[in-house]
Amino acid sequence: MSQSVLLLPGDGIGPEIVAEAERVLHRVNEKFDLDLHFDSADVGGAAIDATGVPLPDSTLEKAQKSDAILLGAVGGPKWEGLEIAIRPEKGLLGLRSNLELFANLRPAILYPQLASASSLKPEVVSGLDILIVRELTGGIYFGQPRGVRELENGERQGYNTYVYSESEIRRIGRVAFEAAQQRGGKLCSVDKCNVLEVTELWREIMTDLARDYPDVELSHMYVDNAAMQLVRAPKQFDVIVTGNMFGDILSDEAAMLTGSIGMLPSASLNAEKQGMYEPCHGSAPDIAGQGIANPLATILSAAMMLRYSLGAEQAAQAIEAAVSAVLDKGLRTADIMSEDASRVSTREMGDAVLEAL
Amino acid sequence: MSQSVLLLPGDGIGPEIVAEAERVLHRVNEKFDLDLHFDSADVGGAAIDATGVPLPDSTLEKAQKSDAILLGAVGGPKWEGLEIAIRPEKGLLGLRSNLELFANLRPAILYPQLASASSLKPEVVSGLDILIVRELTGGIYFGQPRGVRELENGERQGYNTYVYSESEIRRIGRVAFEAAQQRGGKLCSVDKCNVLEVTELWREIMTDLARDYPDVELSHMYVDNAAMQLVRAPKQFDVIVTGNMFGDILSDEAAMLTGSIGMLPSASLNAEKQGMYEPCHGSAPDIAGQGIANPLATILSAAMMLRYSLGAEQAAQAIEAAVSAVLDKGLRTADIMSEDASRVSTREMGDAVLEAL
Ligand SMILES: CC(C)[C@H](C(=O)O)[C@@H](O)C(=O)O
Ligand SMILES: CC(C)[C@H](C(=O)O)[C@@H](O)C(=O)O
Repeated sequence: MSQSVLLLPGDGIGPEIVAEAERVLHRVNEKFDLDLHFDSADVGGAAIDATGVPLPDSTLEKAQKSDAILLGAVGGPKWEGLEIAIRPEKGLLGLRSNLELFANLRPAILYPQLASASSLKPEVVSGLDILIVRELTGGIYFGQPRGVRELENGERQGYNTYVYSESEIRRIGRVAFEAAQQRGGKLCSVDKCNVLEVTELWREIMTDLARDYPDVELSHMYVDNAAMQLVRAPKQFDVIVTGNMFGDILSDEAAMLTGSIGMLPSASLNAEKQGMYEPCHGSAPDIAGQGIANPLATILSAAMMLRYSLGAEQAAQAIEAAVSAVLDKGLRTADIMSEDASRVSTREMGDAVLEAL
Repeated sequence: MSQSVLLLPGDGIGPEIVAEAERVLHRVNEKFDLDLHFDSADVGGAAIDATGVPLPDSTLEKAQKSDAILLGAVGGPKWEGLEIAIRPEKGLLGLRSNLELFANLRPAILYPQLASASSLKPEVVSGLDILIVRELTGGIYFGQPRGVRELENGERQGYNTYVYSESEIRRIGRVAFEAAQQRGGKLCSVDKCNVLEVTELWREIMTDLARDYPDVELSHMYVDNAAMQLVRAPKQFDVIVTGNMFGDILSDEAAMLTGSIGMLPSASLNAEKQGMYEPCHGSAPDIAGQGIANPLATILSAAMMLRYSLGAEQAAQAIEAAVSAVLDKGLRTADIMSEDASRVSTREMGDAVLEAL
């Protein structure tokens, strides 16, 4: 069965890292006879430069027709002066909402080979393996009404709306409970239900769902406390589920606990398991074009894509094993460099993964 | 000139820790001839139990008439079933808004004597000294409309409103710029202006204000990145200014970097420098009543109160020196206990501070 993959390199280091992941995908495509077909398109700042908008219709159409999408990253100082409505980020947000990619899975895993990269003490993070399930198409990042209005006294007021319906909470809740079932059986739902009504509903629905998953141990935590507990004792967590904004903040915090965010992939799935896959890190404009970015998070995102959207578990495992082998060999890009390792470029890292395959 | 201090012990460990701070305040009152007068009242869960509401009128009146307020903490599992409108937290929020305590100052300081308590590597946190300036009476914690409504399809939807006006942003901005002037001259404003319109206005006003403070170096950071940078390299920050919700999350994260949140005080000030002072930690219901809580954050909050609201800098410094002396002696409550230290109770810690005074 032929399947199609859309590549969206995007901005900054995006093109460099997606190029390496593409080579890896071509290799497993042959090796495992996957019959994958590839196309590519512009999104974000690259699309603004080419067409004036961050998500051209042609890109959206290709995305809708594809079985899976691999994205590099979007955004950069070049487009920071633009209004929110036409910024690079809107391209990403537009893909998420148009494809209804409501379930964002962000693993925070510490690779034993990279343990020393963490700013935390080894005993606090060694063996860290958390999955953050972030709701991705609702909440305040999409809520209406929003904007800036003039008040009666003549001054301006900015406003956004944080909103969730029962069904939105329920569907992300199910994804999280199922993920917990397949992992350590523990789910922590993060909210601020002592202050925000929308998260009171969140907690109620999560509590209600728990009855369908008697094998999962559900707990609740306020977001401020979660931000603390991630620093204090991150290994207490198995799966965390939370809304779009809290998930944005906590998943980045959790990723950084590993000290090697250049290693962390992510998946954004819809109800049909169509998905968009991207590294957790951003477009890193400061090092773009230098050939020194770490392509491994994108390569591992390609592995997640093979697993979740393309039904190619074997190929996914092969990539993950190759990445691990490359780390064992001591190869490191600048961001994860340590004393006794060998520093390699983006391309050399890609070469090494291909070789290990 | 006689001044009045209102003590609000609140819930959980609140009464135990406020009792020690009260003893310390009485001592400096005599020693420095401050002519302070004390009163106390119920707030939070304690007030709910006594009167049915978290902020009785009598408490609010006393608060309004006082020159400064020292609060323990509010909340606990006993009141978690209640609706947001009548929860203990509403007592705290009601005090903040009624007294217009819009400027929340939360230092995250690593005491050299307690460096090993941090979960971060010593080189990452040694000498840490950040001040987080959190807007405290606006943003989504107070925004209207809010609640839970029924949608046309019969399901419920929760909603809250994230809102800031120019003048609200400007006044907290000024507090932060002035604090930066008195410290390291660096201010980082945290927003999510690539997605949220309300924070676009935030960034615009901060940028505008910067012209009045040419001696302060202003930078901007997205909140997700700030959550990461605090873990990766917290010493890059001097003063951070942000809105109510982001400030809630980031100040707790920053506090936990020190590993000794039981040491961290906070101040919430209004335009007249009337203020409410409280420890950064919460009501810790799990250890309430055992006499083992750490009273130092509350004692240091009393020192902040003397400094910012009561014009008694000398007394503030005396308390801070006493706390430092007690740490030097190796006295530790359970939360900051380390191998070669002497464990003391809440009361014994209070005794030691009194003695050092
Ligand atoms: C680029 C931005 C819109 C995006 C978000 O906030 O969702 C990013 O930070 C992420 O976490 O994927
Ligand atoms: C108790 C709660 C309402 C409060 C807040 O969120 O503001 C607390 O977390 C704080 O940070 O002071």
